[in-house]
Amino acid sequence: MKITVLSGGVGGARFISGLLAATRRDDEITVIGNTADDLWLFGLRVCPDLDTVMYTLGGGIDPERKWGRTDETWNAKDELIAYGADRTWFGLGDRDLATHLVRSEMLRAGEGLAAVTRRLCERWQPGVRLLPMTEDEVETHIAIDGTGPDGRDVIHFQEYWIRLRAEVPVRDVVIRGAETATAGPGVVDAILDAEVVVLPPSNPIVSTGAILSVGQIADAVRSTAAPVVGVSPIIGGGAVRGMADQLLTGLAIELSASGVARHLGARSDGGVLDGWLVDTSDAAQLAAVEAAGLVGRAVPLYMSDDATTAQLARDTLDLAGAVAGSSAA
Amino acid sequence: MKITVLSGGVGGARFISGLLAATRRDDEITVIGNTADDLWLFGLRVCPDLDTVMYTLGGGIDPERKWGRTDETWNAKDELIAYGADRTWFGLGDRDLATHLVRSEMLRAGEGLAAVTRRLCERWQPGVRLLPMTEDEVETHIAIDGTGPDGRDVIHFQEYWIRLRAEVPVRDVVIRGAETATAGPGVVDAILDAEVVVLPPSNPIVSTGAILSVGQIADAVRSTAAPVVGVSPIIGGGAVRGMADQLLTGLAIELSASGVARHLGARSDGGVLDGWLVDTSDAAQLAAVEAAGLVGRAVPLYMSDDATTAQLARDTLDLAGAVAGSSAA
Repeated sequence: MKITVLSGGVGGARFISGLLAATRRDDEITVIGNTADDLWLFGLRVCPDLDTVMYTLGGGIDPERKWGRTDETWNAKDELIAYGADRTWFGLGDRDLATHLVRSEMLRAGEGLAAVTRRLCERWQPGVRLLPMTEDEVETHIAIDGTGPDGRDVIHFQEYWIRLRAEVPVRDVVIRGAETATAGPGVVDAILDAEVVVLPPSNPIVSTGAILSVGQIADAVRSTAAPVVGVSPIIGGGAVRGMADQLLTGLAIELSASGVARHLGARSDGGVLDGWLVDTSDAAQLAAVEAAGLVGRAVPLYMSDDATTAQLARDTLDLAGAVAGSSAA
Repeated sequence: MKITVLSGGVGGARFISGLLAATRRDDEITVIGNTADDLWLFGLRVCPDLDTVMYTLGGGIDPERKWGRTDETWNAKDELIAYGADRTWFGLGDRDLATHLVRSEMLRAGEGLAAVTRRLCERWQPGVRLLPMTEDEVETHIAIDGTGPDGRDVIHFQEYWIRLRAEVPVRDVVIRGAETATAGPGVVDAILDAEVVVLPPSNPIVSTGAILSVGQIADAVRSTAAPVVGVSPIIGGGAVRGMADQLLTGLAIELSASGVARHLGARSDGGVLDGWLVDTSDAAQLAAVEAAGLVGRAVPLYMSDDATTAQLARDTLDLAGAVAGSSAA
């Protein structure tokens, strides 16, 4: 089976680990990774979401933090602080630095991000084909209250997320460069040729939303013959890892499983989804999900251990099968 | 007193630490640092000699290795090896990396190496004014026996020095870019305005020689009114840190204190020196030194502790005074 996943960082990576456990060796999993939270830092191109997927699936992720490398040290970062460097709020670990060094040197030599990512994955062997959503530079910026001419400051998503801990109100989200970006090599085909397309429980604005902000990708998701099913990142009115709250309320999206479903929309109605999983505790929202034109199911969404994560992946594929069956009928 | 030192890495840095101990707070010491062993490594500009001077005088040097940072870790390097990256023979420590990151980002932003070096020295407070010999990219390359069309391979000096441990014969030394390089900001004035110019016990080919390969610098050294005195890097027929052997014999320079003196030459005869210190064990060579037109003295050259290093600096300044006195007479 060919499965294509549009993935952000932590939630997406965890879901994909379940998908690998729930599928067979000859199933082909392609991951279209969010690159809109990438940034240049001290002349290095840092790709947090791609790296989280790669490290998580390749066994290199720190299991507590769920980002960055295991057995990490922070000596370079400490020295950058001692130099009074800017932007030392970013968690630039010593081991992690090597990834950025290899990547940045290849990019400067003229390689595209897709080839660079393949090269890095040769080492990590994540068990999936990891494709950057685009090779163009797309960056998510967040408008917050500030001192700019319109009373706002606009900062990189990473600064909002890490330095400000996503604790201040979001006034706007701008995915800079998205309107002119083209999909990365292999991305459109991976969606059109898929038998199932999955939106894992990633942030619907800055992760899945950023990937879908590339027009060619949204078009492919709208037109693929494969069922497109998603997993709610909201359980019981709150984001599992917290960050969605400010982002969703700032954009007037209802902070609920069905609110996110309505935001993404049914493919039958110009949106990007056919089916949507909500947590069993949110079963009461299935009516609203189905009223939005989606096939809904309530299953346990907490990926609390490997077994529940694999079961969520199976439930997701089951929903895709049901969607495909109902549309074929 | 205004003292200007043309310095390579370890030997020069050690000598300057003695000079700081031997002089008064209001003496002005300017160090013109060798940049011809600089290299681009993973997109980072690495300046080994400038950093050795900066770390040594700023208290950040590893006291055993005499290069790189104290309390250093090597996790980024280990990861680069795990990625199968090239040129991991270079000793790129995690703490050291921060220096290269700050430098490279500033260079890419359009700052010159002199401004970058000032910025780095704001932290390290080396007690001297450290000036890169040039802001142009000058790189020392070494020709060795190899598989090239003329039976030679040409490699960066750092690769010769670190990967090959300077153990194979040197067929040629090429200071690439030197013929078109201009002296860095402040360099020519620092030589012309000096009251003493010192060539510390640095390698006469790849350190002092590389600095003097910049025409404007050699011209300034030849024409300054200050006495120019040097300290032999050769004691008893061998280089103190070993590396000069292959470099000198490969270029048909006699491996002795007087051989190096003749190679550098007397200013009265188109060279760059007025005075030359040899080790007390090499006192028999003073006749040859003086025959070459130099004022010579034999003093203890081993910088075995802080006291002997400071004494060597005092002996150097004494020789400069003697040279100035004799030319005034």
